[in-house]
Amino acid sequence: MNNIITFGEVLMRISPRGNKKFIQSNNVEFYFGGTEVNVGISIANFGGNVKHISCISNDFIGNTAVSYLNKFDLDTSAIIRSPRPLGVYFLEVGAVMRPSAISYNRSHSSFSEIKPSMVNWDKSLENGTWFHWTGITPALCKGSKDTLLEGLKLARKKGMQVSADPTYRSGLWKYDAVPREVLSELVSYSTVFIGGVNEINELLETDFSFSNEDFIAASMLLMEKYPSIEKVFDKIRTSINSSWHKIRARMWNGNEFKETLDLDITHIIDRIGTGDAFAAGIIHGLQKFDDFKTMEFASAACAIKHTYMGDVNYANEEDVLSILDGNTTGRLRR
Amino acid sequence: MNNIITFGEVLMRISPRGNKKFIQSNNVEFYFGGTEVNVGISIANFGGNVKHISCISNDFIGNTAVSYLNKFDLDTSAIIRSPRPLGVYFLEVGAVMRPSAISYNRSHSSFSEIKPSMVNWDKSLENGTWFHWTGITPALCKGSKDTLLEGLKLARKKGMQVSADPTYRSGLWKYDAVPREVLSELVSYSTVFIGGVNEINELLETDFSFSNEDFIAASMLLMEKYPSIEKVFDKIRTSINSSWHKIRARMWNGNEFKETLDLDITHIIDRIGTGDAFAAGIIHGLQKFDDFKTMEFASAACAIKHTYMGDVNYANEEDVLSILDGNTTGRLRR
Amino acid sequence: MNNIITFGEVLMRISPRGNKKFIQSNNVEFYFGGTEVNVGISIANFGGNVKHISCISNDFIGNTAVSYLNKFDLDTSAIIRSPRPLGVYFLEVGAVMRPSAISYNRSHSSFSEIKPSMVNWDKSLENGTWFHWTGITPALCKGSKDTLLEGLKLARKKGMQVSADPTYRSGLWKYDAVPREVLSELVSYSTVFIGGVNEINELLETDFSFSNEDFIAASMLLMEKYPSIEKVFDKIRTSINSSWHKIRARMWNGNEFKETLDLDITHIIDRIGTGDAFAAGIIHGLQKFDDFKTMEFASAACAIKHTYMGDVNYANEEDVLSILDGNTTGRLRR
Amino acid sequence: MNNIITFGEVLMRISPRGNKKFIQSNNVEFYFGGTEVNVGISIANFGGNVKHISCISNDFIGNTAVSYLNKFDLDTSAIIRSPRPLGVYFLEVGAVMRPSAISYNRSHSSFSEIKPSMVNWDKSLENGTWFHWTGITPALCKGSKDTLLEGLKLARKKGMQVSADPTYRSGLWKYDAVPREVLSELVSYSTVFIGGVNEINELLETDFSFSNEDFIAASMLLMEKYPSIEKVFDKIRTSINSSWHKIRARMWNGNEFKETLDLDITHIIDRIGTGDAFAAGIIHGLQKFDDFKTMEFASAACAIKHTYMGDVNYANEEDVLSILDGNTTGRLRR
Amino acid sequence: MNNIITFGEVLMRISPRGNKKFIQSNNVEFYFGGTEVNVGISIANFGGNVKHISCISNDFIGNTAVSYLNKFDLDTSAIIRSPRPLGVYFLEVGAVMRPSAISYNRSHSSFSEIKPSMVNWDKSLENGTWFHWTGITPALCKGSKDTLLEGLKLARKKGMQVSADPTYRSGLWKYDAVPREVLSELVSYSTVFIGGVNEINELLETDFSFSNEDFIAASMLLMEKYPSIEKVFDKIRTSINSSWHKIRARMWNGNEFKETLDLDITHIIDRIGTGDAFAAGIIHGLQKFDDFKTMEFASAACAIKHTYMGDVNYANEEDVLSILDGNTTGRLRR
Amino acid sequence: MNNIITFGEVLMRISPRGNKKFIQSNNVEFYFGGTEVNVGISIANFGGNVKHISCISNDFIGNTAVSYLNKFDLDTSAIIRSPRPLGVYFLEVGAVMRPSAISYNRSHSSFSEIKPSMVNWDKSLENGTWFHWTGITPALCKGSKDTLLEGLKLARKKGMQVSADPTYRSGLWKYDAVPREVLSELVSYSTVFIGGVNEINELLETDFSFSNEDFIAASMLLMEKYPSIEKVFDKIRTSINSSWHKIRARMWNGNEFKETLDLDITHIIDRIGTGDAFAAGIIHGLQKFDDFKTMEFASAACAIKHTYMGDVNYANEEDVLSILDGNTTGRLRR
Repeated sequence: MNNIITFGEVLMRISPRGNKKFIQSNNVEFYFGGTEVNVGISIANFGGNVKHISCISNDFIGNTAVSYLNKFDLDTSAIIRSPRPLGVYFLEVGAVMRPSAISYNRSHSSFSEIKPSMVNWDKSLENGTWFHWTGITPALCKGSKDTLLEGLKLARKKGMQVSADPTYRSGLWKYDAVPREVLSELVSYSTVFIGGVNEINELLETDFSFSNEDFIAASMLLMEKYPSIEKVFDKIRTSINSSWHKIRARMWNGNEFKETLDLDITHIIDRIGTGDAFAAGIIHGLQKFDDFKTMEFASAACAIKHTYMGDVNYANEEDVLSILDGNTTGRLRR
Repeated sequence: MNNIITFGEVLMRISPRGNKKFIQSNNVEFYFGGTEVNVGISIANFGGNVKHISCISNDFIGNTAVSYLNKFDLDTSAIIRSPRPLGVYFLEVGAVMRPSAISYNRSHSSFSEIKPSMVNWDKSLENGTWFHWTGITPALCKGSKDTLLEGLKLARKKGMQVSADPTYRSGLWKYDAVPREVLSELVSYSTVFIGGVNEINELLETDFSFSNEDFIAASMLLMEKYPSIEKVFDKIRTSINSSWHKIRARMWNGNEFKETLDLDITHIIDRIGTGDAFAAGIIHGLQKFDDFKTMEFASAACAIKHTYMGDVNYANEEDVLSILDGNTTGRLRR
Repeated sequence: MNNIITFGEVLMRISPRGNKKFIQSNNVEFYFGGTEVNVGISIANFGGNVKHISCISNDFIGNTAVSYLNKFDLDTSAIIRSPRPLGVYFLEVGAVMRPSAISYNRSHSSFSEIKPSMVNWDKSLENGTWFHWTGITPALCKGSKDTLLEGLKLARKKGMQVSADPTYRSGLWKYDAVPREVLSELVSYSTVFIGGVNEINELLETDFSFSNEDFIAASMLLMEKYPSIEKVFDKIRTSINSSWHKIRARMWNGNEFKETLDLDITHIIDRIGTGDAFAAGIIHGLQKFDDFKTMEFASAACAIKHTYMGDVNYANEEDVLSILDGNTTGRLRR
Repeated sequence: MNNIITFGEVLMRISPRGNKKFIQSNNVEFYFGGTEVNVGISIANFGGNVKHISCISNDFIGNTAVSYLNKFDLDTSAIIRSPRPLGVYFLEVGAVMRPSAISYNRSHSSFSEIKPSMVNWDKSLENGTWFHWTGITPALCKGSKDTLLEGLKLARKKGMQVSADPTYRSGLWKYDAVPREVLSELVSYSTVFIGGVNEINELLETDFSFSNEDFIAASMLLMEKYPSIEKVFDKIRTSINSSWHKIRARMWNGNEFKETLDLDITHIIDRIGTGDAFAAGIIHGLQKFDDFKTMEFASAACAIKHTYMGDVNYANEEDVLSILDGNTTGRLRR
Repeated sequence: MNNIITFGEVLMRISPRGNKKFIQSNNVEFYFGGTEVNVGISIANFGGNVKHISCISNDFIGNTAVSYLNKFDLDTSAIIRSPRPLGVYFLEVGAVMRPSAISYNRSHSSFSEIKPSMVNWDKSLENGTWFHWTGITPALCKGSKDTLLEGLKLARKKGMQVSADPTYRSGLWKYDAVPREVLSELVSYSTVFIGGVNEINELLETDFSFSNEDFIAASMLLMEKYPSIEKVFDKIRTSINSSWHKIRARMWNGNEFKETLDLDITHIIDRIGTGDAFAAGIIHGLQKFDDFKTMEFASAACAIKHTYMGDVNYANEEDVLSILDGNTTGRLRR
Repeated sequence: MNNIITFGEVLMRISPRGNKKFIQSNNVEFYFGGTEVNVGISIANFGGNVKHISCISNDFIGNTAVSYLNKFDLDTSAIIRSPRPLGVYFLEVGAVMRPSAISYNRSHSSFSEIKPSMVNWDKSLENGTWFHWTGITPALCKGSKDTLLEGLKLARKKGMQVSADPTYRSGLWKYDAVPREVLSELVSYSTVFIGGVNEINELLETDFSFSNEDFIAASMLLMEKYPSIEKVFDKIRTSINSSWHKIRARMWNGNEFKETLDLDITHIIDRIGTGDAFAAGIIHGLQKFDDFKTMEFASAACAIKHTYMGDVNYANEEDVLSILDGNTTGRLRR
């Protein structure tokens, strides 16, 4: 019985080890990721039951990807297999003032041929109580947007919670669509908004500032425009450089504003997927904790993700709660 | 002054080390290859001056690929850069009765958007004396076929030698074309045919057997149909299993048939690109040796390629000639 | 619905790469294995539904082991977790005339504290149609022997097929028991005997020779003593040296004797778990093929296992059937 | 002539590289360690003559362990070999707010069967002038406690110096004994106490605070109860997180209290064995330097150990003295 | 057309990975470097046309070195090949308070037999507009000093710019020469001085302090003594420890003094070659930017070099300019 | 008490992994070797007490080399340390018809400055019963030749056995000496000749053929010319290619000729140092076995060395004797 549903592209990430560039070494490592499946795996590691829906290549690379999801005990039974290759991204990991760089090979991937007719949403959402989507899926192609929309409509009809991470990544939108309109429609089927002032400004064509006051005002306006939205959770990253960030969070749940203290990540191991760890923390937290503890849990989940290689968060619930209990000095566990 | 011209797609090969499958290890290695560039690099390693023409992604992966060609002193000045990603292939290396397996991600690669207007053949062939093509390039898309054809026409007009390796790989032909007709037109501009009974049967719709008699008859018929063809060189592989092959060669040059003895490759390190090493041996050999020595050189080049990791042949001319001198026992060189 | 049940210890194997000794390199790799789980994973790779029952450490090593089984889609829901550490074995891989060497650390492992009360056999065998056991499990300790016996009794009561691989490894039997008596009782609940003259001689205190005639006579006597046994499948290994083996098989099914030709494994990658691949081939084959094809399938499965690193067989059904179709020359699959 | 005697278990440490978890990579590294042998190797690297006494498995793992000790020129002639396996610990290295985690497999190791009758203390201590023990050895089993006690008694009888690092690790004590009583008896044979307020409170059932005043009072009381104790050296660790610590030290030698400044370890490579490096610094220092320089030497030794992978300190005496001279900016040595 | 000329030894660097010592691991990596070729490669990566002149071993190591230079598109046509081995240096990378350590094997290397008669300076400088030299080359042997001097004289005669990095490394000077006199003569042919108060004091036997006032006074005196010098650029490194440095720069161009702010390099990946990256930044900058922007460019180039493994700077012009634009927070580039 | 004395250069070997060329990968491994120390380590692994005398660099590379010898329990107390670098050789491992290739950097190494005054032969040979030398040491320089000669004279005076492996490697002799005369003098102090017809022809300027008859005649003549020689042991290698050799041996001990059967090494892991393993087998064997068993032991030792990476033979006495007992099929040892 898998009640958490994630839907989105699974990508293979290929990266040289240890901050090297591709031109420096032909020894590379691969991982699997993709924003929605990152969220799914992270929730599974917290103890949740997760089904991930995707379209994956029908070759040994696709087999490896599915096996990777199985490893984390995700339900992979609804995954569609396609003759097209799995999407790939190449990553060069930066350090200090050198930014990390990504090059994508995903525009004709197996996921890019998904269409509503390929997903049996009725069956897929059978035991579902939560559906999570992000702004990446509708950006990829019309088929993925339409498929997602169909899923969201059914999810809402069934009374499921719907969390939205409506990141707008301009470089991705290549089919004929107005991103704001698409995202707006999708947000209108959502109940939890994981995003901040930037995302709201994008949606509402407003120009709220980054202050807490404006965050509250923006959130209120968002809830006014999209009455299904009940809560807004915003993650705030302070980047000293590529290797050193700070993370905190703030929220507006219709009644109260709260914010956390900064968590100081002095030695980043891998910053990919840290936003997804935050989203997973919100989704998992809302099923067990109050709103403030949920936000603290998500913030700590985001922070600890920076210490794991790869796209996914390996922390379990206990690992994250321990940070909330103040155990941030890294005392050895025997 | 680069007189040898090769034209074709450069691919990134990604492969786990040591016979592992992708599902077994996330440590992988990458190499660059592609049948025509393999030929080019091999000739450069023999001491030839080679210009390779291609269309390569305009990202750090593409930079790495171009830098790889520079490493072997190929002239890369005519390479076009494209916003599309470089083609990739994934390889799982087999052993004994387990076959190696390849999965491609090349159908929307940077090379697949090449068009005749993108290559300045006049300038590219300026000092050219030899043009080499294979059956892969015309199979990829109409643009690559048209571009190749234009190059071949000019090459012949300039009196260049043209070597054809008209391998027919059915899985690649996805655009609207009759492979036999396309290959036939391209062969009609060629002077050296690197292929055997299979390739001739494919072209002429004949059914010659594998015997030496039929090889001669087939070669004669080929020369009749394509009068520009002066010589036919055929490489014969005997596979005991994935790890153990034997290689020999035979030829018909219009006047005489010759064949070599088998070279026994008891412990294969990497069999990718071995046919390309043979073609490079033919092209390099014909510029320095008589036909029979050329064939022996090519056969030894093919054999020794099986002992190098990656797609390209690292042997230099002396390494190959040493095998012709009978040094096949691997005596340590201090 | 998992109809194939395997029961036994999961071990962590730790081994230097590439034929090195531990004294030579502190870079090592780990794999998971254990004869019964190897059989289970191999059957899962053939497409079967397998549940593995075991007792695994309740730490991050145990988590990794369970996740490894999930990766192959085994049902791990019946696995018990224990505070004791997972069993480990260290392997130094030999070559040519140098034998491989193993050192065990398993005598106080998590599995060694298993007791009948810890396994709910009723629930575990619910949908079971086949139970596989080996001579390793009863050798480890009284608890594992008793637990196995209880499972076998129920399996037979439910009319399940029971395959026995009654390997006798003298070094393992350290508790107070007479191995022959224990194995004899367990064989008496079995229907398929995967073993040969050595195993029969051990059980019956006979001294049949290795000839086909004696194999038949031994099998007949075995079936007389243990009337539940319907078929005997024997794998024959000819070792040229550590790096080069040949494998064939023979069978007696009560009616006819058959044997296969040798499969020549000229370059062994990993010989651990090859007997388990044979057993898996028998179990999987008997569900789909006739006895002779089953034996050929098992023999090919055993042979191809020698080409995969690690304890488990990665070949799928198609890979093995392809060898039966005569594809043993390792032709590249694109 | 080896005058420094260390006695204790040698463990094999197995750990993924670069902060990975076991679930992420099957590439791992092994090291050897164990608190007492870490001290011994560190002293040998400072130039001391060290004999280590232990009981090690009689297999290729044990051979590798002994060879590892030989590498550092320890006298291994008194090591006993046993058929039981060497103790193992698995380590996942954390970062920032993620703690490192250890899982042990040592409870039935080769060392755990040591008994007084197995060590010839008369011969082993022949040229000894210093004996070092820690609270780990008496915690493991009755045999190791009894053996240690016998050694300590003889050491004191011979007038050797005895350093005690009476760490109390509650998880280890599994045999029938009252830890405080055991440790108390062992401390009564010691002359140098390497520990602080926690260890004293544990021994004396007091509750001194962490202040310098209380440290002095606690040390005085300790010396009152155990008159053989002449000096107390305490290492103080300030953990910012798993990746960033500060180290300083304080001492009471019966006459004066002194403390050092903090050494800032901004980028920890490996924190295992850092306390052992401190102890080694004390033991080595007391043979050459005054008490304050000894403490500074030990503190710097502890700090620099954080920059070496593995359990042992590779710094030589000159490396450590250079830090005392103020060379902490890491200027390249050519 | 290569207008930038660098001349100097190419060294092979051999180093264990990840802060290990050679005694810890037999897995090592090699890179190529050498102060002048580092400058050349860095300029090539900025887009410059660079010819490097050297004497390199005539074996497969030398082939690998030349191929390494080709990879970065340096003109290697003037490189001389020698039967002597390539110079090697071994590097152990430190961390925090542990300094990195280097051991050289270069005193009888291929470069050490260079003589003026071996370099055709007329041809080599044909299209040259800039010549860069360092204090390493004249230190190695009389032949390298004489060869350099001959090149510098011709460069000045042709009106080329000449940049001097007159580092004085006392350990290198082993032939019969007075370093100050040699360096002084070489500086007298130079136009841009890349160095600071230490280098000036060394040359002029003065004792200017490190203050900005003294830097200006020293630079003025330098220009008085060597009228060809037009500009002085000084890089200032603040070392917190081996893993954490700050970099800034100051300049005197005859008219004005300027200095940059510190760039904070909190997590150093590799500090070798960072001074060379600064020199390359100066040389490249002076061809495109004003003096102040040149200094800022060089300072940023130096800083970012600390984030690349190996001796050479992989940053391109855009990477460095982006830091000048304030992008130092390492925001991911997609 | 170390009775076996070896004397010679210790070299660092640097080599890419898995048959790669340096141009293909910057990941390399290092080992230590040198023909005489290889013999010494091999004898130590057989259980002998060995002292190795050499001159090794006084840096961290030299420390690593000494520590490597300690690891095998060699007595390193007589090793001299020098400011010059350790000799290095680079190795590219071939396969099949590709030969392995070596490039040396040893002509100005630490060992090359050895002189008779630097070795205290009286003390070094105190407990010696056997001295082993090879033709490499006298070839390197006059100092090493003179030092060796002095050692040999004393060894003979003390009645020690002296084994000679008078390999003549023409490329090494660079100082002013007639190799034949030098080797001849050294052989005149030897008692066991490890070499065959080639070596004898070289010494005596004869032209014996490879036949057994000529081997006997040559050995007789050798013993006539050098009456101290008592036995001649010859190893015969049949090379199918770089990856597949056969080894056998023959002997003449003054009374009888014997030869062994071929040992078939179908999959060579590393062929460096295999001759040294043969010599070690002779030296060790003559102390325990009769002449024929000694020869068989040496032949098996040589064969099994081909299965270990690196320059030294890891086999112990039992490993080798097991081959003599016919265990060549590589049966797994548990």
